[in-house]
Amino acid sequence: MFPKGFYVGGINSGISKNLRKKDLAIFYSESDAVACAMFTSNRIKAAPVLLSEKLINRQKGFRIIVANSGNANACTGEKGLKDAKSICKEAGKAFNVNENKILIASTGIIGRFIPVEKIAVGVNKIALDIKNKKNMPFDAAKAIMTTDTVYKIAQRQFKVCGKTVNIWGCAKGAGMIHPDLKLPHATMLTFILTDANIQRKILCKSLKIAVDKSFNRISVDGDTSTNDSVFILANGLAENRSIKTIDADFNIFLENLKEICIDLAKMIIKDAEGSKKFVEIEILNARNEEQARRIASCVATSPLVKTAMFGNDPNWGRIMAAIGRSNADINPNKIDVYFKQIKVAMNGALIKMDEKKLKNILKEKEVKIRIDIKQGKTGLIYYTCDFSYDYIKINADYTT
Amino acid sequence: MFPKGFYVGGINSGISKNLRKKDLAIFYSESDAVACAMFTSNRIKAAPVLLSEKLINRQKGFRIIVANSGNANACTGEKGLKDAKSICKEAGKAFNVNENKILIASTGIIGRFIPVEKIAVGVNKIALDIKNKKNMPFDAAKAIMTTDTVYKIAQRQFKVCGKTVNIWGCAKGAGMIHPDLKLPHATMLTFILTDANIQRKILCKSLKIAVDKSFNRISVDGDTSTNDSVFILANGLAENRSIKTIDADFNIFLENLKEICIDLAKMIIKDAEGSKKFVEIEILNARNEEQARRIASCVATSPLVKTAMFGNDPNWGRIMAAIGRSNADINPNKIDVYFKQIKVAMNGALIKMDEKKLKNILKEKEVKIRIDIKQGKTGLIYYTCDFSYDYIKINADYTT
Repeated sequence: MFPKGFYVGGINSGISKNLRKKDLAIFYSESDAVACAMFTSNRIKAAPVLLSEKLINRQKGFRIIVANSGNANACTGEKGLKDAKSICKEAGKAFNVNENKILIASTGIIGRFIPVEKIAVGVNKIALDIKNKKNMPFDAAKAIMTTDTVYKIAQRQFKVCGKTVNIWGCAKGAGMIHPDLKLPHATMLTFILTDANIQRKILCKSLKIAVDKSFNRISVDGDTSTNDSVFILANGLAENRSIKTIDADFNIFLENLKEICIDLAKMIIKDAEGSKKFVEIEILNARNEEQARRIASCVATSPLVKTAMFGNDPNWGRIMAAIGRSNADINPNKIDVYFKQIKVAMNGALIKMDEKKLKNILKEKEVKIRIDIKQGKTGLIYYTCDFSYDYIKINADYTT
Repeated sequence: MFPKGFYVGGINSGISKNLRKKDLAIFYSESDAVACAMFTSNRIKAAPVLLSEKLINRQKGFRIIVANSGNANACTGEKGLKDAKSICKEAGKAFNVNENKILIASTGIIGRFIPVEKIAVGVNKIALDIKNKKNMPFDAAKAIMTTDTVYKIAQRQFKVCGKTVNIWGCAKGAGMIHPDLKLPHATMLTFILTDANIQRKILCKSLKIAVDKSFNRISVDGDTSTNDSVFILANGLAENRSIKTIDADFNIFLENLKEICIDLAKMIIKDAEGSKKFVEIEILNARNEEQARRIASCVATSPLVKTAMFGNDPNWGRIMAAIGRSNADINPNKIDVYFKQIKVAMNGALIKMDEKKLKNILKEKEVKIRIDIKQGKTGLIYYTCDFSYDYIKINADYTT
């Protein structure tokens, strides 16, 4: 079930010239919700990121998130910031909500001024629907799409001490996707709504853990965006006893939130620009999480590994080269590499293998690379995709 | 003129099935030469790198470098190391030179045992030619090529206190090309020969400086190889007064060496796998070299920037996004971006520009991106290329 008290919608407001492409979404809570967010770690932050970041650190109750695709409102200077504020103001008027309770997110082309008036008209249209209690989750999920080919929604329902709690989330992202390894920051657009009754501090903690196990473990192209953000709003209308400490209730909530984030993260990779193959990289027996993550991320972003995957080529030498340049402190003479269950390298060197079987495995749409570091006990799973002709095609003329 | 006392050659030894593809090169000095080398910073080092690194740190006079393409002898464990030693031993016999005076380098596919016997036969063939004073620089330069489409040679002649000194170098590299930023290590195969009379310590210093300004400032795909190495041999036969300190003689030598390295580095980028465009990234007014390099390297390796270049797309937003995620401490509100002389962003934000002129500039085969950081006085030039369909094609089936 959709979380209680939330209404969402999406329409074409004219940012996109294709009138069938929805480009404006509203996420609305009928009462104040506590909010947390994680923003891009890119030092060049878009105007909506700067504005939302400021608001969310200053304010407690939020009612609305305005989100648009087609224009990132990034690298737009002072005017961009003013435009973002104007949009929040217009949304405030349309919904009769204090503009300080409104968050904003944008995605699309960088370096163009955002069409404030078109968005203002669009916001009013959605406001009418929402006042009539219309709830259109699919429209909202579609409106945030850019080069995505499918909308991405995940939801869970569970009980907290007898009360039913709902979490619903939608995400967008198909390119410019890469987690930052130093800061626990996510790098795509995700909106999560829940009717859970949960304290803000605990909500933020759960978001950080969930993002770290999901969005921070995927990469399409190694490019971290200027805009991307993960938001969560919790309005408490499930009326469960308040989750305010790390206890059994928290764990139930966290588990479900984590599942939603992992679902959405995997959907992003499966819809990655031009991608033909879903690649799971499992690191085994690393010394610690940092080491595991460095290795996984380096293998996941290697153009040579990614093109080999596209070519159904079991070129494990490129995987070894990527492990070696990851700056993780490894012992080259200990590393085993597998494709699925087939070992292709043992203790850093080639071994005999069933090449026929191997080629068949590589032809599958989902490939699993397992890398055993044999230095400790930490495991980690990372998701990525191949690099295809279509990735080049999609990105060679995005603005033109 | 070719440096005095050096003889080089290259043939097909059968590593490559294509009999017209030369795959084995010998670089030979008729007297002991001092030698320096810089090796890949990849933690997974190929057997020839491990062996040459050990020798060069232990020994002073060298006579021969054996180099092959078609097989990297990487990830081949103990047997790989034994094989590399066997090849040096065979070369020692063929040339009647102590095997400890022989260096070795390999490039090609990772994770296959190297065919020692074929190489031994080949070494003997080249030895016969060299004994007959045949010198075949083009054959040597061709024999180290892998996915390269042209051979790469640069040379300089100059005077040191009245004596004529020659430097000659050849290089290979078209993919798996990316400098390591932390260690001053090069990442391709380059062999430089000079008849200069120069002390080893000073030779090493000059190599380090030259590599840092050339090979450490290029990137094809961000992938650092397990094998690549830069060697320099100086046999002193020019009989100039010994260069043994940082003086005017040293500066003449260094300038010429630097020019050769920059020439070869640019040739590598111009021949980059599938590349249609040569991209020069100039960083202006950075706080220091580290900051400039981080920014340049991040822009150069961004698949989104590279695909935009392929598409003749002046998508400067992607350049800004790459600058922002470079982890360099920048002020986003100060950065100006130019294509050639046309400013496209000022103080981090869009400005009006002549779009027609801009599109024409992007259509040229060489593109110059200038990024003004406005924080200091350090400048730096970095070379890279676009990402094309052909890059994918070349790399999607390299082993198969």
